[in-house]
Amino acid sequence: VTYTAEQIAEALSAELIGEPTRAIDRVMPLETASAQDIGFAESEKYRSRAEASAAGTLLVPADFTEMPGRTVLRVAAPRKAFLRLLEMFAKSEASVGIHATAVIDPSAEIGADVSIGPHVVIERGAVIGDDCRIAAGTFIGSGVRIGAQTRLGPNVCLLADVVVGCRCHIHAGSVIGGDGFGYQWWQDHHHKVPQIGTVIVEDDVEIGCNVAIDRATIGATVIGAGTKIDNLVHLAHNNHIGRNVIITAQFGTAGSVTLGDGVMTGGQAGVADHLTIGSGARIGAKSGVTSSVPANETVWGIPARPMRRILRELASLAKLPDLLKTHRAQQEQIAALQERIELLEQRKPQD
Amino acid sequence: VTYTAEQIAEALSAELIGEPTRAIDRVMPLETASAQDIGFAESEKYRSRAEASAAGTLLVPADFTEMPGRTVLRVAAPRKAFLRLLEMFAKSEASVGIHATAVIDPSAEIGADVSIGPHVVIERGAVIGDDCRIAAGTFIGSGVRIGAQTRLGPNVCLLADVVVGCRCHIHAGSVIGGDGFGYQWWQDHHHKVPQIGTVIVEDDVEIGCNVAIDRATIGATVIGAGTKIDNLVHLAHNNHIGRNVIITAQFGTAGSVTLGDGVMTGGQAGVADHLTIGSGARIGAKSGVTSSVPANETVWGIPARPMRRILRELASLAKLPDLLKTHRAQQEQIAALQERIELLEQRKPQD
Amino acid sequence: VTYTAEQIAEALSAELIGEPTRAIDRVMPLETASAQDIGFAESEKYRSRAEASAAGTLLVPADFTEMPGRTVLRVAAPRKAFLRLLEMFAKSEASVGIHATAVIDPSAEIGADVSIGPHVVIERGAVIGDDCRIAAGTFIGSGVRIGAQTRLGPNVCLLADVVVGCRCHIHAGSVIGGDGFGYQWWQDHHHKVPQIGTVIVEDDVEIGCNVAIDRATIGATVIGAGTKIDNLVHLAHNNHIGRNVIITAQFGTAGSVTLGDGVMTGGQAGVADHLTIGSGARIGAKSGVTSSVPANETVWGIPARPMRRILRELASLAKLPDLLKTHRAQQEQIAALQERIELLEQRKPQD
Repeated sequence: VTYTAEQIAEALSAELIGEPTRAIDRVMPLETASAQDIGFAESEKYRSRAEASAAGTLLVPADFTEMPGRTVLRVAAPRKAFLRLLEMFAKSEASVGIHATAVIDPSAEIGADVSIGPHVVIERGAVIGDDCRIAAGTFIGSGVRIGAQTRLGPNVCLLADVVVGCRCHIHAGSVIGGDGFGYQWWQDHHHKVPQIGTVIVEDDVEIGCNVAIDRATIGATVIGAGTKIDNLVHLAHNNHIGRNVIITAQFGTAGSVTLGDGVMTGGQAGVADHLTIGSGARIGAKSGVTSSVPANETVWGIPARPMRRILRELASLAKLPDLLKTHRAQQEQIAALQERIELLEQRKPQD
Repeated sequence: VTYTAEQIAEALSAELIGEPTRAIDRVMPLETASAQDIGFAESEKYRSRAEASAAGTLLVPADFTEMPGRTVLRVAAPRKAFLRLLEMFAKSEASVGIHATAVIDPSAEIGADVSIGPHVVIERGAVIGDDCRIAAGTFIGSGVRIGAQTRLGPNVCLLADVVVGCRCHIHAGSVIGGDGFGYQWWQDHHHKVPQIGTVIVEDDVEIGCNVAIDRATIGATVIGAGTKIDNLVHLAHNNHIGRNVIITAQFGTAGSVTLGDGVMTGGQAGVADHLTIGSGARIGAKSGVTSSVPANETVWGIPARPMRRILRELASLAKLPDLLKTHRAQQEQIAALQERIELLEQRKPQD
Repeated sequence: VTYTAEQIAEALSAELIGEPTRAIDRVMPLETASAQDIGFAESEKYRSRAEASAAGTLLVPADFTEMPGRTVLRVAAPRKAFLRLLEMFAKSEASVGIHATAVIDPSAEIGADVSIGPHVVIERGAVIGDDCRIAAGTFIGSGVRIGAQTRLGPNVCLLADVVVGCRCHIHAGSVIGGDGFGYQWWQDHHHKVPQIGTVIVEDDVEIGCNVAIDRATIGATVIGAGTKIDNLVHLAHNNHIGRNVIITAQFGTAGSVTLGDGVMTGGQAGVADHLTIGSGARIGAKSGVTSSVPANETVWGIPARPMRRILRELASLAKLPDLLKTHRAQQEQIAALQERIELLEQRKPQD
């Protein structure tokens, strides 16, 4: 798409200084922008980068000082305006109908204006809501139900009976509804515990690429509404993930973990089984959480501890090599004092 | 499926108290069960949850006291009975034959009663045992051999020449037989070391979703019989994984690692190259194993250390900030003592 | 393929001792080799394993002493010769043309001698260079451009507008161009930041299985030429990965991370957002990098610290439990000295 500066100014409620008819093809980083692009200088901090940029148009805050020779769009709330700008340039996927190579069981119910890509498989009794977009190679198992306006990337797997809400977006390669990891050791082998539950993904959830979310042993693994999950995350059976949770990449949980509403997790962190992370808690990157975390607490480390405590311990640890040295010196000082005291004690006391 | 309470009682050798003809549709958690469901109260600890539950039927231990108004099934070994109950409700996949969209090389040998889903690809010379179930979109490379009764989820990749035993289950999105990660730096670039070995997965192995197991440089990466592997695990070239090993999610190894029989690994742990983990050893979650581990040892931490030692070190670390304070106080105390001794020494000795 | 010992000797410029016409079918580990195989004894260290081996032929260094009864190939540079030997036995994929089940948009440009496997999908305007090999089930989005001689494993996803260079190899299940993980919290929900940038993978890059590399918010996530990426790696939006970088399995980054040329990362390590890792730096396995790393520095730990420092801290930590004990003993010693000094001070001074 191409817009004029004027069209963008109007959409962002921006003050336009410069050429209203300037054509804008792309939003680009200041460093790689060219004359047909718009760049973003969020604050005065970006002034020198903006000046060095070849961007013909700049989105700047209302108080940004002059940039002669550029077309400038001044806005009151730069981050919101930038997000709106990105939305203007984002591609929307129009419905392209159902591809001839898709294999759809006759018992499946497909809503209105659904796109189904090549080589998609939809099994018995699945229900797909209106306006869904299902990319190539995706597998939708028997009994799966998907709400309206949900998008599935290519090569996604929704296994039997999984439920996905409305306006969700599940990216390429993710698997929802794999078996939970449960075995009992009997005599001489691990006996599989059948995983007969399911996964419920509520509305407005986004799930990244190559994620794995396991079905419950019984009942459901639940991903709460508005929760966002990054790439390569593992969520185990019977997890209950709250609403508006942020789960960053390569995070993992053991079974029966509860994350409260609004929890935020750092990348590559993990939570042991049956723990509860209270609402609003934050888990630092790479943490290994081994006990439940109260609401609004921030923890970090392996095992995860309250942030203040672990920072204090790390600072202490940095001093430990020196402490060991002065400790040895003290040993010698004390021994020397002891000797001197003994000498003093051997002096005949006055009486 | 629906069973009567009596049918389930008979299958579990349970004592039935209540209505023999009560219909049971599902096994559900006590919290979300309804009248047509059976819930599980493993011990008296679950009594209050069982009482609060709407489950019409309860599976309980033999010594569980009365639950008026419910149909109750009493069993001697509750966990075993529960597992059997789950098996009764687990879906079995009947053979559905070979889908017309599957692309199967004429030289491939397909056993009896094999299901092959839509868009499956089976290349030259592959051999598929009897009663296998191969879900949609799965890729089976040339020369792959698969034993009887093995199940492959959708979008699995078994690359050329990989061998999979009988009664294995490989879940959606997993890749077996990717190239090992091997390069030699020559002059000005990394030169690829061709990975011409394979992967052998023995009988009764279960592999979770989006796992990656690399082929050997030469010879074979081996996954021993009865081993169970969780989601998003990475096993590198020339690993030798023993029998009945439990590998939890997001675990990873470097090349040429050996895990002995019955090893159990925690989630997100890793093992450095060429190490041997002895039979029966346990690796705590998130450990970074940097030296070989003796049989039956339990290690934890980065670098992984014997569990007792690391717990002792962690307990010490928690005391370190206070130690630093009292250490500084000691410095002052010693200095003060030193002064006082000097004063004493300056006193004229009696002679 | 089968070679004679003489053919291999010639290809490796090796001195041949033994039967020139001996047939060699495979390269195998010494332990599992048989008479028709060639084994590799890199140095005298491997002598006893070579003697115990059933390998009919051995590749050895020039100074390796006699091995009666074997055909022996002596070479000046054993590792290079071994790599060349592996290359001789590696399968090359001949072009097999375009499979009838592939779905290729008429606007896509396909180069000469390209193989396209079954169920591949190539969307509008994609450009595929000469001699590419695209395995079954792979998805190539609209506007994707791929250079010559690049290989894509099965079930790979290259999402819209991604650019891949020449001679790249992307293994099964990897996803290039997923959305970056960006949200802004507004009022009562996480608002998605559209990710309208792309990913540029330069020439000679190898990417393992089930990797996820996200597109930039604006501009491009860049993977530099010659870089090698292992399985299950996550690279976030707006990463700039340099040339000839080695990224081992399960590594992950947050957004806007820069890795300089020749960086080497250990497995399961992670780097926080907006950091720069200088050229030639090394990141130890499982590290959590929380601040930028100078060129050629080696760091390890959580948070990552210079290697010497962290090793010193770990050594100190191991001594801490004992230190706590002797520290308590010191407390008592000091208290005892104090008492003794008090007693001495109470003695009447001579005057």
